[in-house]
Amino acid sequence: MGHMARKFFGHIPGQPVGTFYPNRRALADAGVHPPLMQGIHGTAKDGADSIVVSGGYADDEDHGDFVVYTGAGGNDPSTKRQIADQSMSQPNNAGLITSQLAGLPVRLTRGAHPGSAYAPPRGFRYDGLFAVMSHWVDTGRHGFKIVRFRLEQIDGGDPATTASEPSDAQTYATTTVVRRVRDSAQSRFVKGLYAGACQICGVQIPISGGRLYSEGAHIRPLGRPHVGPDHKSNILCLCPNHHAQLDNGGLVIDADLTVRSHPKAGATEVIGKLTVRPGHRIDLANLEYLREHVFPE
Amino acid sequence: MGHMARKFFGHIPGQPVGTFYPNRRALADAGVHPPLMQGIHGTAKDGADSIVVSGGYADDEDHGDFVVYTGAGGNDPSTKRQIADQSMSQPNNAGLITSQLAGLPVRLTRGAHPGSAYAPPRGFRYDGLFAVMSHWVDTGRHGFKIVRFRLEQIDGGDPATTASEPSDAQTYATTTVVRRVRDSAQSRFVKGLYAGACQICGVQIPISGGRLYSEGAHIRPLGRPHVGPDHKSNILCLCPNHHAQLDNGGLVIDADLTVRSHPKAGATEVIGKLTVRPGHRIDLANLEYLREHVFPE
Repeated sequence: MGHMARKFFGHIPGQPVGTFYPNRRALADAGVHPPLMQGIHGTAKDGADSIVVSGGYADDEDHGDFVVYTGAGGNDPSTKRQIADQSMSQPNNAGLITSQLAGLPVRLTRGAHPGSAYAPPRGFRYDGLFAVMSHWVDTGRHGFKIVRFRLEQIDGGDPATTASEPSDAQTYATTTVVRRVRDSAQSRFVKGLYAGACQICGVQIPISGGRLYSEGAHIRPLGRPHVGPDHKSNILCLCPNHHAQLDNGGLVIDADLTVRSHPKAGATEVIGKLTVRPGHRIDLANLEYLREHVFPE
Repeated sequence: MGHMARKFFGHIPGQPVGTFYPNRRALADAGVHPPLMQGIHGTAKDGADSIVVSGGYADDEDHGDFVVYTGAGGNDPSTKRQIADQSMSQPNNAGLITSQLAGLPVRLTRGAHPGSAYAPPRGFRYDGLFAVMSHWVDTGRHGFKIVRFRLEQIDGGDPATTASEPSDAQTYATTTVVRRVRDSAQSRFVKGLYAGACQICGVQIPISGGRLYSEGAHIRPLGRPHVGPDHKSNILCLCPNHHAQLDNGGLVIDADLTVRSHPKAGATEVIGKLTVRPGHRIDLANLEYLREHVFPE
């Protein structure tokens, strides 16, 4: 069954942006969007790796380089009317939320439908990778609760043909920067091992749908010149507060896993001891690199 | 004095990416990089809006679409050797840290120098906007402490001529997404008003250089379809934990400014009352929008 396919995040090899497909069967066979009917390919656990925008929901908005997308459920396919509330725990919707929180890229395919400036004239066209920026719940135009997502193009957009937000242009031009958020399988493993509890303070942060929000923090930073490994021995499950503090020189973690305020950040105090569960070996050389080459005392 | 010029973040009107300048005077007169000698134009309070990469520091690394840049100070301009430690509180270095924390874009100009694959053959060339992704302290090749910055191109790069990180290619391709971080003058005003203390829990997060880390959180989200205003009446100073919780449906803020756990996120409990200082009027209509159209109970 196509919709049971394993998730694969990113471009499908051999299927460049702009490729046309005559129908959903061809789109599924190419691996771009496995299910034949559903608009979202995803589950709460794995995330969603692909969506189709084809005018199936009255509340969808397509702006080219960003899309306001309506979740799955409660929709009568014959009339396109909402006939029931949508839920954030519906598996496809939960998949898009997982992709947002884990920073996973989502393939976006547009299907022909009237009234869209961005849809292909017929069939389906793979239009590249989008990031899920936010999710929320609103009342749709038919009076039922709908789950909505804002997705923004991150790869494959054509600058000549995509729109941006005119009203936000000034704000975007003067204040927008881009921050890379990496959340690999290793990072998700570590977050799962601690059930989203911060390894420094133990806090769990409840968010929509009863989920817990946490972040995978690399001890030795990724990328040049540090080239820390994206491996669980170099990753901690932290709350955003301690992640920001770790990344910006506010913390020292000693070889015995004692966590202290960094003396150059203000008062010196012991915050606690890093919680480490069985199956999670921290590479002490990475902690040493952090102390010696990132924020030395 | 050129280096006392007001900061202006973003492209300079009339100076497109790729513009050449014969010397620093012409570069300064164009407004692209006001100081005639310093490599960084910035202060701790305002941030840094521009840098010049011209081979002045032995530890600089230019990789095209990202740069590992050495901070100011401790350098003998005649020999290009470090002769003293650098400091994160040196105003230009502090300016780049402010730009990182506030998400401000930095203009990058390359000057001709031997051994660089990306520098112009002569004079100076404006090469577009970069984001400061991180800062850290290391021991430079001459044995003194240096402050380093990783900057990544966010606008104006030529995909055909810029490099990316070969060793990270797989990680980047499969797991990287882009998150927009906006931090306007209004947002910085609000953060300053509370001295970085979270309006929900009061926590202050100390980081390098004795700074306090906080985030400006929009109540009614920016961008379509919400189009919340980027105005202080719509902005809260929050710790990253409460910011993540607010943005993802974990909190309700009532009209009397009581902050509660969102019933759909788990246990119902009163967390506290929003701290509001004189001079900061919260627009209650934005709180109502959040309750009614983003994460209704």
